[in-house]
Amino acid sequence: MLLGKVVGTLVATRKEPAMEGFRFLVVRPLDAKGKELEGTVVAVDAVGAGVEEVVLYATGSAARQTVATRDRPCDAVIMAIVDSWDVEGREVFNKAKTG
Amino acid sequence: MLLGKVVGTLVATRKEPAMEGFRFLVVRPLDAKGKELEGTVVAVDAVGAGVEEVVLYATGSAARQTVATRDRPCDAVIMAIVDSWDVEGREVFNKAKTG
Amino acid sequence: MLLGKVVGTLVATRKEPAMEGFRFLVVRPLDAKGKELEGTVVAVDAVGAGVEEVVLYATGSAARQTVATRDRPCDAVIMAIVDSWDVEGREVFNKAKTG
Amino acid sequence: MLLGKVVGTLVATRKEPAMEGFRFLVVRPLDAKGKELEGTVVAVDAVGAGVEEVVLYATGSAARQTVATRDRPCDAVIMAIVDSWDVEGREVFNKAKTG
Amino acid sequence: MLLGKVVGTLVATRKEPAMEGFRFLVVRPLDAKGKELEGTVVAVDAVGAGVEEVVLYATGSAARQTVATRDRPCDAVIMAIVDSWDVEGREVFNKAKTG
Repeated sequence: MLLGKVVGTLVATRKEPAMEGFRFLVVRPLDAKGKELEGTVVAVDAVGAGVEEVVLYATGSAARQTVATRDRPCDAVIMAIVDSWDVEGREVFNKAKTG
Repeated sequence: MLLGKVVGTLVATRKEPAMEGFRFLVVRPLDAKGKELEGTVVAVDAVGAGVEEVVLYATGSAARQTVATRDRPCDAVIMAIVDSWDVEGREVFNKAKTG
Repeated sequence: MLLGKVVGTLVATRKEPAMEGFRFLVVRPLDAKGKELEGTVVAVDAVGAGVEEVVLYATGSAARQTVATRDRPCDAVIMAIVDSWDVEGREVFNKAKTG
Repeated sequence: MLLGKVVGTLVATRKEPAMEGFRFLVVRPLDAKGKELEGTVVAVDAVGAGVEEVVLYATGSAARQTVATRDRPCDAVIMAIVDSWDVEGREVFNKAKTG
Repeated sequence: MLLGKVVGTLVATRKEPAMEGFRFLVVRPLDAKGKELEGTVVAVDAVGAGVEEVVLYATGSAARQTVATRDRPCDAVIMAIVDSWDVEGREVFNKAKTG
């Protein structure tokens, strides 16, 4: 899985029928230090993530293994909202402290 | 999924039989700001996208999960036409305003 | 799918039995302008492509969806020979004119 | 598989139900010389790896082929703890000597 | 598939049970000219490859399509030993001449 930050939302009314009803979120990947990286992914939200939230997203066929996305043409899904992580013993991110 | 802009069309008469009847579109990926990135993908069109349109495309095995592409040697499919998206509260793209 | 140019052939007599009988072609990816990019892929030929030909190739699990490659340890297959493509209304490549 | 070093741990209480009970580890990829590379992956731990340990991790659909991760939205799994490796006849890493 | 050179071996005694009994080889990718590229992959050996040998390896789900690796958490497999290849009519590599 990759670390990402939800930076926006996307609307697409004309789409493959199997994708009806999903929220599409614009996600920027983060590195281990929490810095935004190059690249943009549009992911389906499986956990109720909101804009500004730090999340884990899965890509490839794993993105079809959530209850919501099974057998759908989805290659990126947000499958967790990150509470915190640490690197080399130091806390890099803590959601409770950024609120 | 990735953001892309359809920049052209491609013709290939000699091909794997399972790929007969598809439209092949030449797609350039876009970043979150709508800027064209390096790289070119040729995607099958599952939603009636046209040249110049901004789309979402799925890659990998997800590209075989549309009604049209199931069980075909297709690794990139346009599965939505983008109406609009925003980043950090600002609208980046709105199809109705670019027409 | 990606645009590529077949630049050579490869011989491998000792291989996984499921790969017996395939032609291995050395492929360089092309961008939308037809320029050769960095990187080299060795793809199985499913359509009778020859050296110097411009092709579409599929990667990942899609490469096992041709009649020839099903259930084989193949992650890149040439599934179409390109006749022509255009970008922004201008023809970039036309096989009939390069012959 | 890729070489990686576990550099931290991640907590995510709100997540896809199928991901309950897993340990998420923050992993930095290593090159053949054991040097840390750019990029960060968050992998599920299938072998009891600890922080600072050098591991092998599998990505993509392979990450769902461990006993623990089958059919779950997981695209990266630590599936081995590395004891040692050599390159061109010289030992690059030996766990017993780093302890 | 990608061209690679086996540069070393790796030992991992603690691993996912499904990976018992495999040889792990350290592989550096090669370009069409036979030059070693950045990046390191650890691949399972399905064909009896040795250190210094030039090989083809498959990645992703294709890596589980050899007799040995089916249904195992393996995302890279050496599935052929390269005898020779040519680019633009010139032989780039010939195993018989390097021995």
